[in-house]
Amino acid sequence: MSKIRINRGKLKVVNLGLESFATNIVSAGHDAIQVAWKPPLDIDRGLRQKIASRKDEITAANQESLKLIQAGKPMLVGMGIARDLIPGMHENLILHAGPPITWDRMCGPMKGAILGALMYEGRADSPEAAEKLASSGEISYAPCHEHDSIGPMAGIISPSMPVFIIQNESFGNFCYATQNEGLGKVLRYGAFSPEVIERLKWMENVMYPILKSAIESLGKIDLQSLIAQALHMGDEVHNRNRAGTSLLIRQLAPALLKTMKKVEDTTAVLNFINGNDHFFLNLSMPAAKAVLDAARNVPKSSLVVVMSRNGTDFGIQLSGTGNKWFTGPALVPDALYFPGYSKADANPDIGDSAITETAGWGGFAIAAAPAIVQFVGGNATDALNYTLSMYEICHGESGKYQIPALDFRGTPLGIDVIKVVENNLSPIIDTGVAHKDPGVGQVGAGVVNAPLEPFVKAYQALADLII
Amino acid sequence: MSKIRINRGKLKVVNLGLESFATNIVSAGHDAIQVAWKPPLDIDRGLRQKIASRKDEITAANQESLKLIQAGKPMLVGMGIARDLIPGMHENLILHAGPPITWDRMCGPMKGAILGALMYEGRADSPEAAEKLASSGEISYAPCHEHDSIGPMAGIISPSMPVFIIQNESFGNFCYATQNEGLGKVLRYGAFSPEVIERLKWMENVMYPILKSAIESLGKIDLQSLIAQALHMGDEVHNRNRAGTSLLIRQLAPALLKTMKKVEDTTAVLNFINGNDHFFLNLSMPAAKAVLDAARNVPKSSLVVVMSRNGTDFGIQLSGTGNKWFTGPALVPDALYFPGYSKADANPDIGDSAITETAGWGGFAIAAAPAIVQFVGGNATDALNYTLSMYEICHGESGKYQIPALDFRGTPLGIDVIKVVENNLSPIIDTGVAHKDPGVGQVGAGVVNAPLEPFVKAYQALADLII
Repeated sequence: MSKIRINRGKLKVVNLGLESFATNIVSAGHDAIQVAWKPPLDIDRGLRQKIASRKDEITAANQESLKLIQAGKPMLVGMGIARDLIPGMHENLILHAGPPITWDRMCGPMKGAILGALMYEGRADSPEAAEKLASSGEISYAPCHEHDSIGPMAGIISPSMPVFIIQNESFGNFCYATQNEGLGKVLRYGAFSPEVIERLKWMENVMYPILKSAIESLGKIDLQSLIAQALHMGDEVHNRNRAGTSLLIRQLAPALLKTMKKVEDTTAVLNFINGNDHFFLNLSMPAAKAVLDAARNVPKSSLVVVMSRNGTDFGIQLSGTGNKWFTGPALVPDALYFPGYSKADANPDIGDSAITETAGWGGFAIAAAPAIVQFVGGNATDALNYTLSMYEICHGESGKYQIPALDFRGTPLGIDVIKVVENNLSPIIDTGVAHKDPGVGQVGAGVVNAPLEPFVKAYQALADLII
Repeated sequence: MSKIRINRGKLKVVNLGLESFATNIVSAGHDAIQVAWKPPLDIDRGLRQKIASRKDEITAANQESLKLIQAGKPMLVGMGIARDLIPGMHENLILHAGPPITWDRMCGPMKGAILGALMYEGRADSPEAAEKLASSGEISYAPCHEHDSIGPMAGIISPSMPVFIIQNESFGNFCYATQNEGLGKVLRYGAFSPEVIERLKWMENVMYPILKSAIESLGKIDLQSLIAQALHMGDEVHNRNRAGTSLLIRQLAPALLKTMKKVEDTTAVLNFINGNDHFFLNLSMPAAKAVLDAARNVPKSSLVVVMSRNGTDFGIQLSGTGNKWFTGPALVPDALYFPGYSKADANPDIGDSAITETAGWGGFAIAAAPAIVQFVGGNATDALNYTLSMYEICHGESGKYQIPALDFRGTPLGIDVIKVVENNLSPIIDTGVAHKDPGVGQVGAGVVNAPLEPFVKAYQALADLII
């Protein structure tokens, strides 16, 4: 006889409300899922009524912005140098992840990454000199998001860095992102030792021209297709990119050969990408942003087009509220920490990579990548439940990106700030965790909920705007 | 609130017994799963009692053969030419899929593939001349399985064909398999037109030396690791090999560059593999056989070490019954047929590829690859149920190969002929369908149940042997 027996022996509990109930069950050796559900937020009744009275107009606006998102076609169309491509980039500008922030409020890993970038640019020859320059007022800082760009973790982009050019083919808009450095001691986690700078130089002088020629010989690479396939192959294209990276290598390899100049260099590039399963992240992120940017500025739309963190603040932007940021303190993730580290070492959540969740991937598609949940102690049912709960706060479902384990149902798409606030249910984000001090690097990974404060502020601002 | 809603609106029925109940439900627009369960087979009571009286010894023997299977480590260690490597290969020998069969009893696609092989070998210059030679008695035929080899569909191996060398590192035994030709008009589906022969020549003269050098420069490629990963990435390594092929390209690419002689040729090889998602099948199959062969000849073991079809007969071998074949008629699959074709065009089930199911992959791991079930009209729940039902006829679960959707539970492993017969539940096999006439090719794909007759015969033979 055939019967479902995913659950064998152990007690499995889905807990609503007080998290300590679930903790007790787990400590007794059973499994418990803490559902991210809480009673409605204490929102001003007048505000709720304002929103309710305009429900039809808001829904129509959301329909429109969702349509724009659904129509997006992200393509990798080339590579170039940040200073030549990124609008507004200049020699004294450094772009960073998350909402705007001044040097003095920046967290350790972001400061560390900036010191590294200044040394990489030849603007300083020691961390001390770099810190002096960084805090002198000579250097300006701005969010990647305000310059058609995006970056994981600290998200630092300085003028000499090579960037991928991603275009939303349906609307013509661009997004730029650097090449992924791999794991370990890397700039995006705040490391700035000589090996970090040397790797960045190799990426600029050796890897970049080789990849640029290969991409040019292909004309373009269809990221929509690669991401849709990757979601069928165990990736959620945020914390797991093994399939995306494999599919990319597969497509690049013949072009790398065709455009090859020095065998050793091309071999080194292939080995570098082959050794770094996160390589595809720096393509899935700009793909997400290129798609979401096309849905900006739909009046009255309550859909979220940006979620991002600078390691100090968590910020969001809505389609219906222009370029305004709504922020609140970034939280320290309850993550799985690497041996020797604990939550006390962790920096609050950081990086532009929550753009993948905003586009319906990452934590929203975690049912497609149960290995991530398993890594932090959960199981396939938890992964399904995480994704299922995200449909509750989304306006629709993707027509292009699917989750095999949910019978190829479209991913939850179009985070509606009204549903977030009125259900008191915040978006789930897959994340890596950086050490809070500059120069250390990654100390863990996990699945976290976004803080509610930015969503409540955005909800209020939208209500104020549309009445 | 979070709730599971895989089922939305539609009725979903799990049906036991009369299949027409399920058919009616489906025709009313709902979903029904026909569980492959039937009342116990009408087996001679004396036979059952014989088996029952030796239960402990049989279980101990199965424990031993399962241990041997679990310990297997399949590695790709090189390439060579069939005549130089395959034991017993000679100029007048052609190997084929499935149990032994004479020319006159062979099905259309097998005959077609043999005509193609004779033309490829330069033994005939027309299909007519090839047919004359093939039926003259000058050419001998033998199962791949009896020559440490394995082949998909017709499974034809002739002396000049290049083969991969797979070794079970734990026990030293070898298995050989040809390079996969891709889809469309290909020899293994019985096609033999000039384009088929030209492709085989290119595979021998261009692709083979290039792949051989690359594999030699790597030393070996760990197929256990690639298969375990592929099962985490949506493959079941029988009818879906996209992840396996991608991971293989990823590992081969740097070695292809390192050993490159002519850029155009190496590029053509990369393009060929990139254009053929089934390329990895000809590695997963010998990996399965290399692992299972090590578990042969455990006295009293009722575990199945071969399931295979020659397009006329379906044959199995048990660990405890030596090299004896137990056969019954191969069935015509209830498959999804390509436009323009129907079941009337289909050849009965053919190929050695059911070795993947015997090793716990393919249909046994279909819960890891729901896209396959979807392709033939099912859903993710059907895929789960197919896999779950296979645990009922297996002695254990793999310690190496896992199914993410079942919380990374090990695949069902070690088909026990006693459980198959006593539960009247036959193994599920993913399959491609060949046209019954020579020279046509593939006409469909599906999920089929093995016929019970070979299992009943094997059950009886085992009982006779151990008493």
